[in-house]
Amino acid sequence: MSLFPYRDSIVNPYWLNSNQLDINNGEVINDDKQFAVKLDVSHFRPEELNVQLNGRQLTIEGKHEFRGDHGMSQRSFLRSFLVPDDVDINAVHSELSNDGRLAIEAPKTAFSADRAISFQKH
Amino acid sequence: MSLFPYRDSIVNPYWLNSNQLDINNGEVINDDKQFAVKLDVSHFRPEELNVQLNGRQLTIEGKHEFRGDHGMSQRSFLRSFLVPDDVDINAVHSELSNDGRLAIEAPKTAFSADRAISFQKH
Repeated sequence: MSLFPYRDSIVNPYWLNSNQLDINNGEVINDDKQFAVKLDVSHFRPEELNVQLNGRQLTIEGKHEFRGDHGMSQRSFLRSFLVPDDVDINAVHSELSNDGRLAIEAPKTAFSADRAISFQKH
Repeated sequence: MSLFPYRDSIVNPYWLNSNQLDINNGEVINDDKQFAVKLDVSHFRPEELNVQLNGRQLTIEGKHEFRGDHGMSQRSFLRSFLVPDDVDINAVHSELSNDGRLAIEAPKTAFSADRAISFQKH
């Protein structure tokens, strides 16, 4: 039996605010220096997270399961990105901060080359 | 290729704080008057939510999917509860508030009966 939806007539409900719905979608930086994805994963333990790079396909997954006195709880997310062609794919790395922010970052190929040349000059 | 986990030595990381991990697990009230489950579903549109009651098995699901310029995003949750025997199963109802709080509530059988008797007296 479905109990849902039950709704009163509602003024300015939360689902008209796209910021609210996209709040966990994180931040993507794609400028001339780097490609970076930053996500709040603070509701997932490190062992519940998985970051995979297959070719240029970057996939970030989280799955949390909990069984308690009051029943069972699952939550999960999946994010998938195509890493741009001008990214140095071998330099992609990920880092999880103390407060649950996951960052996946890589320099742009041109920027890597510039830095290498500068280094060789000195 | 797995990019994860990469972790520095971290002092007091977020995953040692169970409140942080259980923050979306909601609230369950089970007292002499009512059984109630309250969840924050503000990251899901009403049409992405499903509340089912099969016998005494209460299941609440949400699934959000988004495809944008930067790739694909999915998130989902599943909560399952066994509604206690002393709950008036026919009186279970759900309500979604303006700010994205979902409440599933039902009175206890004894409390329903008391109320019915009181009503008949007047």
